[in-house]
Amino acid sequence: MDSLFTPAAVVDLDRMEANLDRMAAYAAQHGIGLRPHTKTHKSPLVASQQIERGAIGLTVATLREAEIMAPLDADILIAHPPVGDAKLKRLVALAATNRITVALDSKEALEGLDAATRTADVHVGVLIEADLGMHRVGVQSPADAVALAMQADRMRNVAYKGLLFYPGHIRQRVEEQDAAIEQLNTDLDAYLVALRDAGLAPDIVSGGSTPAAFASHRIRGMTEMRPGTYVYNDRTTALVDACAWDDCAYSVLATVISTAVPGQAVVDAGSKAIFREELRGTDATGLGALLDRPDVILKGMSEEHGLLDLANTDWRPRVGDRVRIVPNHVCVSVNLHPLIHGVRGNAVEGTWPVVARGWTP
Amino acid sequence: MDSLFTPAAVVDLDRMEANLDRMAAYAAQHGIGLRPHTKTHKSPLVASQQIERGAIGLTVATLREAEIMAPLDADILIAHPPVGDAKLKRLVALAATNRITVALDSKEALEGLDAATRTADVHVGVLIEADLGMHRVGVQSPADAVALAMQADRMRNVAYKGLLFYPGHIRQRVEEQDAAIEQLNTDLDAYLVALRDAGLAPDIVSGGSTPAAFASHRIRGMTEMRPGTYVYNDRTTALVDACAWDDCAYSVLATVISTAVPGQAVVDAGSKAIFREELRGTDATGLGALLDRPDVILKGMSEEHGLLDLANTDWRPRVGDRVRIVPNHVCVSVNLHPLIHGVRGNAVEGTWPVVARGWTP
Repeated sequence: MDSLFTPAAVVDLDRMEANLDRMAAYAAQHGIGLRPHTKTHKSPLVASQQIERGAIGLTVATLREAEIMAPLDADILIAHPPVGDAKLKRLVALAATNRITVALDSKEALEGLDAATRTADVHVGVLIEADLGMHRVGVQSPADAVALAMQADRMRNVAYKGLLFYPGHIRQRVEEQDAAIEQLNTDLDAYLVALRDAGLAPDIVSGGSTPAAFASHRIRGMTEMRPGTYVYNDRTTALVDACAWDDCAYSVLATVISTAVPGQAVVDAGSKAIFREELRGTDATGLGALLDRPDVILKGMSEEHGLLDLANTDWRPRVGDRVRIVPNHVCVSVNLHPLIHGVRGNAVEGTWPVVARGWTP
Repeated sequence: MDSLFTPAAVVDLDRMEANLDRMAAYAAQHGIGLRPHTKTHKSPLVASQQIERGAIGLTVATLREAEIMAPLDADILIAHPPVGDAKLKRLVALAATNRITVALDSKEALEGLDAATRTADVHVGVLIEADLGMHRVGVQSPADAVALAMQADRMRNVAYKGLLFYPGHIRQRVEEQDAAIEQLNTDLDAYLVALRDAGLAPDIVSGGSTPAAFASHRIRGMTEMRPGTYVYNDRTTALVDACAWDDCAYSVLATVISTAVPGQAVVDAGSKAIFREELRGTDATGLGALLDRPDVILKGMSEEHGLLDLANTDWRPRVGDRVRIVPNHVCVSVNLHPLIHGVRGNAVEGTWPVVARGWTP
């Protein structure tokens, strides 16, 4: 690792494998399907390790992710509505080789999918996305879900499969999740009852994100979970106790380039290597922290500079020293790097590309 | 443009050319050298247009940027200290073909450069970086600058060239800059006097960033400026009146994918296409705004979702509609895109890669 050019994205392979094992074991223990979100790693190499450990399929956000994962012969859920001709064209091409399911919340997206699949003579499954508290996308009532499900159910090349929600708003510490999960159960139940009453009982109820992943068995009726971050984890995940600090597998290796300004050390990794994302769901501050000294935080950054705060530490780095920085949010940090270096201890075991970056083929 | 896959990075070529012309004319009028920072566009195609308009050289932050720009035969300033063997190796290779100058603030960086240039038998210029209020990097006193300059001046393959500062803290509205510029002049003057008194009068005094670019003639003793953002501009630049809204040349083309949640419309561009950066130096809010409706702001985003706030507009977009979003900070947004589509009006005139992304060759 000492010879790597910095900044560099580094993954501790022992930790990554333990993270993959832990989630696979949890899902198996509770009989919940694990459909990992590939947006975090964007790598078929990592996805194949998730499939080897029993994942029932993969989740993607973009068509490029789907296309890169397709050769793994995976059952793919596109958790983002493909709207417009350019996307539908790529979607139907995928549906010719892979089992594809799409989540959507509008008549427009559903009708576009219907027309495109009929023209291409392919079949696609559909999940109706419901808003269960995230307030990002998703139908707003059980009645709206029933109407859309019914419309999908009547289509020739589109098969209604069930319900999807994204509980991304459940990001508090694990021991403080009770109320949020009870509310989610109440809301979800209203959807399930309405769909069953309409003769549209869902085969699939898809939920689950990393911060609440290990509470998935408490969400009644959920058949599968879609965590992404868990493969690498990050500072946010650790701060909400959804993983231990030592489960953080990903870091950005950086070199100290200046100690001229008192009270700080500046490294050669900034918002173009780490990403800039404030913490949410915790009182902690900073834009990242050192893997080996989590009390040393990044107090600021610009594009190619990261400012380590030395106010609360006796540690005094020198120009040329190397550090590893755990970002607040790993998915957006990985997406900044062309390559990931897999390490065991201090040895680089292999390097793989973040193949599915971007949107175009 | 209607057939582009979204999200897509789009540059209005008429606006870009006008931005390049305006800055070149300003620099020529005031006799200040223009050394544009290529971190914003990371493209030799755009850099060559800056050189054609009279740029005296280019600024880069990374060695990859330097390597990509080197074939333009440019005089290159690396405004980031190259620390460590991996960087020095690439630096001395560049110095064999191009005139290279490096900014640094430490004995360690200077001595590393000295050793590497002597071993490789190449010559490199050095600027001493001073902290004139940004508090990121830079020596803290005129005495420290003199000591480092004197050390550089005695080296065989390193040539002391002058002083560099980054006035990135001057980001208030143009009409509110007076006090900050007076302070800068006072601080800068102390450095210039000390260096002159030591027989080390600088040939080059390098400063200037986009927010204060058109005040450069008021900074006494500055010989060259290094704006980057001005080629495309962004929401921050417009909000501090360093450009007009209609000078924003770069936007992210996106498609509305959901209008299910009341009060908002969701597009297929989020923090992986726009970047997440809060505004600074202005009271305005939001993570971006629509090019054609700057009153419609992005109130939130996740990786592949952007949430347009419809609270203060009568505009009601439909699923499938397309919008163009101006990011708060263009440099970090461009860096997320493999390709830029150059448009005139609604026609795509050409597409070029953002070649210099990343750090490795």
